Amino acid sequence: MQRILINEIPKHSGKDVLIQGRIINFRKLGGISFVLIQDYAGKIQTVWQEEINAKMSDSVEVVGTVKKEERARGGFEIVGKKIKIISTSAEEPPFDLSKTKLNLQLTTLLDHRPLSLRHPKVQAIFKLYDILLEAYETAMRDEGFTEIKTPKLLEAASEGGANFFKIHYFEKNAYLAQSPQFYKQIMVGVFERVFEIGPVFRAEPHFTTRHVNEYISLDAEMGFIKDYRDITETLNKIIVKIFGYLNEKGGPYLKEYGVEFVEAPEKIPYIKLSELREIIKKKYKYEIPGNIDIDPEAERLAGKYAKEEHDSDFIFITHYPFKDRPFYTMRSRENPEETYGFDLIYKGMEIATGSQRVHLYDELIKNMKEKKISGKGMEFYLDIFKFAMPPHGGWGLGSERIIQQILGLGSVKEAVLFPRDVKRLSP
Amino acid sequence: MQRILINEIPKHSGKDVLIQGRIINFRKLGGISFVLIQDYAGKIQTVWQEEINAKMSDSVEVVGTVKKEERARGGFEIVGKKIKIISTSAEEPPFDLSKTKLNLQLTTLLDHRPLSLRHPKVQAIFKLYDILLEAYETAMRDEGFTEIKTPKLLEAASEGGANFFKIHYFEKNAYLAQSPQFYKQIMVGVFERVFEIGPVFRAEPHFTTRHVNEYISLDAEMGFIKDYRDITETLNKIIVKIFGYLNEKGGPYLKEYGVEFVEAPEKIPYIKLSELREIIKKKYKYEIPGNIDIDPEAERLAGKYAKEEHDSDFIFITHYPFKDRPFYTMRSRENPEETYGFDLIYKGMEIATGSQRVHLYDELIKNMKEKKISGKGMEFYLDIFKFAMPPHGGWGLGSERIIQQILGLGSVKEAVLFPRDVKRLSP
Repeated sequence: MQRILINEIPKHSGKDVLIQGRIINFRKLGGISFVLIQDYAGKIQTVWQEEINAKMSDSVEVVGTVKKEERARGGFEIVGKKIKIISTSAEEPPFDLSKTKLNLQLTTLLDHRPLSLRHPKVQAIFKLYDILLEAYETAMRDEGFTEIKTPKLLEAASEGGANFFKIHYFEKNAYLAQSPQFYKQIMVGVFERVFEIGPVFRAEPHFTTRHVNEYISLDAEMGFIKDYRDITETLNKIIVKIFGYLNEKGGPYLKEYGVEFVEAPEKIPYIKLSELREIIKKKYKYEIPGNIDIDPEAERLAGKYAKEEHDSDFIFITHYPFKDRPFYTMRSRENPEETYGFDLIYKGMEIATGSQRVHLYDELIKNMKEKKISGKGMEFYLDIFKFAMPPHGGWGLGSERIIQQILGLGSVKEAVLFPRDVKRLSP
Repeated sequence: MQRILINEIPKHSGKDVLIQGRIINFRKLGGISFVLIQDYAGKIQTVWQEEINAKMSDSVEVVGTVKKEERARGGFEIVGKKIKIISTSAEEPPFDLSKTKLNLQLTTLLDHRPLSLRHPKVQAIFKLYDILLEAYETAMRDEGFTEIKTPKLLEAASEGGANFFKIHYFEKNAYLAQSPQFYKQIMVGVFERVFEIGPVFRAEPHFTTRHVNEYISLDAEMGFIKDYRDITETLNKIIVKIFGYLNEKGGPYLKEYGVEFVEAPEKIPYIKLSELREIIKKKYKYEIPGNIDIDPEAERLAGKYAKEEHDSDFIFITHYPFKDRPFYTMRSRENPEETYGFDLIYKGMEIATGSQRVHLYDELIKNMKEKKISGKGMEFYLDIFKFAMPPHGGWGLGSERIIQQILGLGSVKEAVLFPRDVKRLSP
């Protein structure tokens, strides 16, 4: 008999079929066994009139008759005839995967990641993540962006930042890319619109629920813009398309977390950072410390404000101070202390950062001088601005944070398959 | 006036339009100027009855009248009325981008990558690369694979290999992933079928036309296989779909390299490595040195054999010796000196490597002992084989090599935007 996939079962009503998959639930009820089996195409309940000699999590092959059953998920079940154990467990797992909720400490969940990932509720996170990737790839192509892959090994720890990991590279040192920033800007001079999905590495010694040291950034850069609004409006459009995808394909996975559907407004509201500071001081009695641009509490309150004033889960905060933004950020023409830099806040947390960039060589050099950046090792980047770069800008969107916020996960680490933090390099 | 995109021009026949883009060619012919302009959606010739005050590679805005013109690319041209320079070059470029062929040394081409990428023939490589990524993403999803992203920072230089880059990771050392091998296998226990598109890092001191130290691997891993043929047949199917995509969407880019269309057989031929050794010795008088499994010359001859005997650009070479394959490769049940490991050769070069993997804990430990691998730092990987892993296997497909071989590029470095080798870490 040939294996059929579980999503093909309805086509075989009343007939015998052979399926293969993993046992993801096992219940006995008055002499009858119910064995839930999952393959890569779906899940199906198999019913047995006898004691089954198999264990939770086993890889099995089942022969049985497809039966219409209104109470079953998908309207069908399999009346089991024969079960073969393809592969079984040699040890008791450290926790019970058949429970509806795992209820593990984050540390335990992550220490036993290869096993905890098998739980349907954990699986759901990464099924949504898969849909998110597909949605971003598709939406970006629809908008005329070309997919690129840029190097993660760099000669110099440029961008003026300190948070680079150092590598031994043959006889030299090298550094891991914090972002594809320089390369995606260069590519605007080639394809005008580019996007990249790739890992970024941040040597930041954070211990928070919103940071990891390696994550997947959804990057974009686009040319011939009028101003930063072209960027935010394009990002808005992409977010709406992504959420449409998640609703269309991710329903069952969202439901695992009690989410009926996800909503993104066609017109995300905007606020200038300086105005936001005033508003949250007046409205919520919270004052952002003077020496920083924004902090997590202010982001949370920006989210609250967006919800209360605009009935929106999203808000763009714009015009971040030049002192807090990288040298390549374009300064506001009205107030050179401010920039055309923005963040996108979703449910009270920053999920994207972007800006209009400087596209003129002299302006770039002036900005660097002011920030005391030498430019050593960045010549290849600076030089391209001598060759007719158009006005441009882009964003970096944190893929894992989107999922964290949609599902209300306690930590972004739950949205990373094998997260990396200061203490964790394994599994 | 609103900007329109160049691919929308046919809809505006006879009307005035405003376009923006980069000048990618500039010819003067008896008082008339022909200015070829490119935006992210296409290319269009603009014609001027006067001397144009603009330079090659400038970013410009043009207002003009759309005119039907049979001799023009796409059947239309723009009769220019007004040109505005949005951004111009401050320096003469180091080579002439308006020439049909750049004819640069590889070193020059790569040293000036931000500029050389603007040449239409170089652009074509990365437009095809974009289509390749889209094709792989789409084909893998069609076959039920879930997209995953696994960590590139590892605690241990495992897999038994020596070619790992070492990183300073806070107070510890870490290593850059050579492949997603362990993680994609673990994920077979979760989703049964997974794929990943991501960078891999190889600290191999190669100086060849077929190696770079960072490249994008198209990985896959699948469970519940009967034998290694399930893997090679799935890879065959994926290759056929990718080539279909390249023909459908990549025509103009392929033509830049004189390629009319690309062909992949529905049934790629197979040969055992031991047979291949005999055949190329007898037929082509070449003997693979006794201490290695295969070398580039033998791959070239395998390609020649596939073409001559099977009229195929592809051939699977199977049953590589256990001594030359990683410990997780399943040994042949008929001859334990051999494995169910394979390579896929395309036009005489290996583009993919794969195998059926060991899925039983005891067998894995036995293989490791034989290869004198300690298993330190690999516990998370080894332990999952105590929990009912199904028979499985997969491949790693070199994305850049596919493009190299399709276009007949002299070096794989031409198919990488910003390649990394022993000497090159910039741009």
